[in-house]
Amino acid sequence: MAQNQSSSSAPDTSRRSERSRRAIYDAALALVAEVGYPKTTIEGIASRAGVGKQTIYRWWSSKADVLLDAFLDLSTQAAEAAGQVPYSIPDSGDLAADLKYVLRATVDELHDPAFEAPSRALAAEGLVNEELGRRFVAQLLEPQLQLYVDRLRAAQEAGEVRPEVDPRIALELFVSPLAQRWLQHTGPITYEYTDTLVDYALHGLAPR
Amino acid sequence: MAQNQSSSSAPDTSRRSERSRRAIYDAALALVAEVGYPKTTIEGIASRAGVGKQTIYRWWSSKADVLLDAFLDLSTQAAEAAGQVPYSIPDSGDLAADLKYVLRATVDELHDPAFEAPSRALAAEGLVNEELGRRFVAQLLEPQLQLYVDRLRAAQEAGEVRPEVDPRIALELFVSPLAQRWLQHTGPITYEYTDTLVDYALHGLAPR
Repeated sequence: MAQNQSSSSAPDTSRRSERSRRAIYDAALALVAEVGYPKTTIEGIASRAGVGKQTIYRWWSSKADVLLDAFLDLSTQAAEAAGQVPYSIPDSGDLAADLKYVLRATVDELHDPAFEAPSRALAAEGLVNEELGRRFVAQLLEPQLQLYVDRLRAAQEAGEVRPEVDPRIALELFVSPLAQRWLQHTGPITYEYTDTLVDYALHGLAPR
Repeated sequence: MAQNQSSSSAPDTSRRSERSRRAIYDAALALVAEVGYPKTTIEGIASRAGVGKQTIYRWWSSKADVLLDAFLDLSTQAAEAAGQVPYSIPDSGDLAADLKYVLRATVDELHDPAFEAPSRALAAEGLVNEELGRRFVAQLLEPQLQLYVDRLRAAQEAGEVRPEVDPRIALELFVSPLAQRWLQHTGPITYEYTDTLVDYALHGLAPR
């Protein structure tokens, strides 16, 4: 989720520029979903968006930059649709309920073809293209994970999470299983599943 | 980890066949690591292995079949090197210690270039090639995960894990975070990290 994804990349905020920017994002996401990252080109994006190549190069220096901005924009839209803007995880005082709420919204997002196809294509490329992978993580994934860190820290202050727990590792107990099921098709992705992950992570597998 | 990966694919077990089979596996793993799955071909594997194309086609029907068998073989070798053959997770009566031991062996494997490069290439292809992805999971990943299911069931019988816990979901609390850090470069992979995952998963994030 991007706090200010349009500030540096699209200084001209006139309606015409905004329309071009949106057309470029849509074309980039559609292309990467259809033909994969390696075969997506600036030329192809320009052609599909109905703009000149130079329009794209005025705002971005590479296809990776276009795609990352297109994804930031897509994530922003998804977060807005899910009522998660401004960017934070709700704090109702009930950590389990708040985590289940956010993970259910993520389940919905992962079942949305507009999000799923380009995300998968970019994630796949990130596995073998280390530079893209690290930018994908730093610019897209890690800022989202940081929201869980913040929420877990608040829970530690409220006594809901043990003080010695490292929130950056703790969040992986429920975020990573969902990511792996989605990425590798290792199991169904449902609300019941993510609710179960939260319960297991908070209360542990061992008897209390 | 494969219990019997050589039984159906290489019926001729003479030393010469065995030498060819090994050369084909080595060539397939090296190629997929170097040029990726899409550019790896039966011709390329045959040429690099110093065998005829027909030798490969006698034993396998596609490059996916060759690669999956090559991976099963590689996993078997890794398991043997780690003292994990026959295929089970040790049961010392201390679940935390046993899980930490196995996950530390996995950390070593993920840091081994011979394993890491081809695994990553195949995993990346599995993300966008759903048929290959599902075979990769069914033939390689899921049999390994089943070992954790077995160990967690034994722990339930011993009273170390709550009886209502679903072992197939429970194992994801420590396996999936490691997988995601490895696949997406989201954080360092160390013994301390996997030990921490086991402790958090067993005892939970909430105070006891």
